[in-house]
Amino acid sequence: MGENHQLLIGTVPQGALRADDFVAYVAPTAPPDDGEVLLETLAVTIGAGQRAGLQGSASYAGAASSGVVMGGTGVGRVVESRSPAFAPGDMVMGPTGWQSRPTVAADQLIAVDGDLDPALLLGPLGINGLTAYFGLHDIGHPGPGDTVVVSAAAGSVGHMVGQMGRLAGAKVVGVAGSEAKCDLLCGRLGFDAAVNYRADDFRDRFKAATPERIDVYFDNTGGDILGSALFRMAVGGRIVCCGAVSQYDTSTPGPGPRGIPGLLVNNRVTMQGFLVFDFEERYAEARAQISSWLRQGELDPLTTEYEGLEAAPGAFVDLLAGATVGTTVVRLDP
Amino acid sequence: MGENHQLLIGTVPQGALRADDFVAYVAPTAPPDDGEVLLETLAVTIGAGQRAGLQGSASYAGAASSGVVMGGTGVGRVVESRSPAFAPGDMVMGPTGWQSRPTVAADQLIAVDGDLDPALLLGPLGINGLTAYFGLHDIGHPGPGDTVVVSAAAGSVGHMVGQMGRLAGAKVVGVAGSEAKCDLLCGRLGFDAAVNYRADDFRDRFKAATPERIDVYFDNTGGDILGSALFRMAVGGRIVCCGAVSQYDTSTPGPGPRGIPGLLVNNRVTMQGFLVFDFEERYAEARAQISSWLRQGELDPLTTEYEGLEAAPGAFVDLLAGATVGTTVVRLDP
Repeated sequence: MGENHQLLIGTVPQGALRADDFVAYVAPTAPPDDGEVLLETLAVTIGAGQRAGLQGSASYAGAASSGVVMGGTGVGRVVESRSPAFAPGDMVMGPTGWQSRPTVAADQLIAVDGDLDPALLLGPLGINGLTAYFGLHDIGHPGPGDTVVVSAAAGSVGHMVGQMGRLAGAKVVGVAGSEAKCDLLCGRLGFDAAVNYRADDFRDRFKAATPERIDVYFDNTGGDILGSALFRMAVGGRIVCCGAVSQYDTSTPGPGPRGIPGLLVNNRVTMQGFLVFDFEERYAEARAQISSWLRQGELDPLTTEYEGLEAAPGAFVDLLAGATVGTTVVRLDP
Repeated sequence: MGENHQLLIGTVPQGALRADDFVAYVAPTAPPDDGEVLLETLAVTIGAGQRAGLQGSASYAGAASSGVVMGGTGVGRVVESRSPAFAPGDMVMGPTGWQSRPTVAADQLIAVDGDLDPALLLGPLGINGLTAYFGLHDIGHPGPGDTVVVSAAAGSVGHMVGQMGRLAGAKVVGVAGSEAKCDLLCGRLGFDAAVNYRADDFRDRFKAATPERIDVYFDNTGGDILGSALFRMAVGGRIVCCGAVSQYDTSTPGPGPRGIPGLLVNNRVTMQGFLVFDFEERYAEARAQISSWLRQGELDPLTTEYEGLEAAPGAFVDLLAGATVGTTVVRLDP
């Protein structure tokens, strides 16, 4: 029997998340039953959407409760297997949660290429990349010459949406929370423009950055940025509702944006919510395309890395505070 | 030269519309130029959406200004024509505005069957019927067994949406502003259920009327009713954004509904705004279908009628106060 270092939800947060809402716990490893495998976790990713899962009330992820291991997707190596699907040494991805030696049902894991960096598997080839891919293409339908705007543009999904929009021939505008992030988007990632939503003259800058209005708005934030985008949509424009990070880290979400439904009617705009899980049958197609872009250097993945499981709560707080870029990855000590 | 009795916009209303926001004026008739016809107006219809056109700020109908003839669609008979398209005695429909003897460009008029009652031409065969038809079918896509909910359900568009939903095999639930309207919907028009949004326990009643949640919500109101519907949408549901009558008769529209975009994401809901004018190429198809339903008694059109042009301002106030049902028609004195 070994030790399984875990981080539990200590307190379901009422206001902004704090690192001490989580508590460390050391459990004995659980020997796998039939159909289960014991893993050694190599890395976990944290997404802003997980904050919605801590609301206490229901989100698509279900309600949170204290005293359970914090959930999350990770990459691990199989230590012991009681499933014919996996052998010791295999690298897998799935719901490891925040723990060093989890026991997981084999049917919740997928085999991944053991030669790839877990950060790639958790970022562009994981849920973040798939979310960007299906949301942009299947909900947003960008065409050459269209203007694509994405919020939380330096975030785990946003930075890939922008690059995929560029690959689709669109003009790409990012909305992000600092001048440094805007510089990163336009400099390193090839966005056509980026606007800092914390600037006093955000609305004027946003308008100037979208002179031909917006054909596709990929919304990761909801709130005021969604409100601003609504006023800039082109006739027939599409709003891809992916997330609402502006509403997650609070127990008192704001009212909805003004102009709904009036602006949707006047400009014949479509708003459509989606969950990436509905596209599961096409993950292989998307991963093949994303792998190809990565190999050819056409998609540049951003990652913010932390070392050690104990860094995960702080990483989550950083993420919600907008202090990270790209995919947030916590690598576990070997 | 004859007299053209007109009603002008006297004051662009700041709060709720009042009948004395309009002023009567008698102009000489304007002799038609090339391509124009002089009409005798038989009837005009008033729609709640016209209130949005009086906001001063832009809507899809453009901004209003005082001193001009109040706009609106009417049916008239040609008195004098300088267009090869029409001869004296022809019956036509188009933008007559609130005036007894307008001069109108022939290319803005369509020929209509002179044997039909103007109330049918302005209601089910006019913009109201076309709006219900395209919005329900082309945006809402109701299927057999679906639950279709419509707000302002006793209104000019709503009462037809519900009946067309029933013809498509859906279960139909109306939301209206009085018990009498609800009785009318379930009794005369065959709705499966109707809920009075002014009832104290509206949310409970609404929930009870939609036990299988909502597949198609046809929204004529925006505001609180849209907010309630958002919480009852089925996974994959469609919200048809047709109008926002709750927001028209005020200069201080409320905030948008809570739960946008979160509820759209969780339930993968699509909200789509539309304007009937985008479907102009298919008006003939729709009118043929609607005519067939009318002949077979499958579509029962409701009308609230007023006599005399001078009744139009009061009719408009009644309409916005929810005191009318179906299509509001003002018949002019011969």
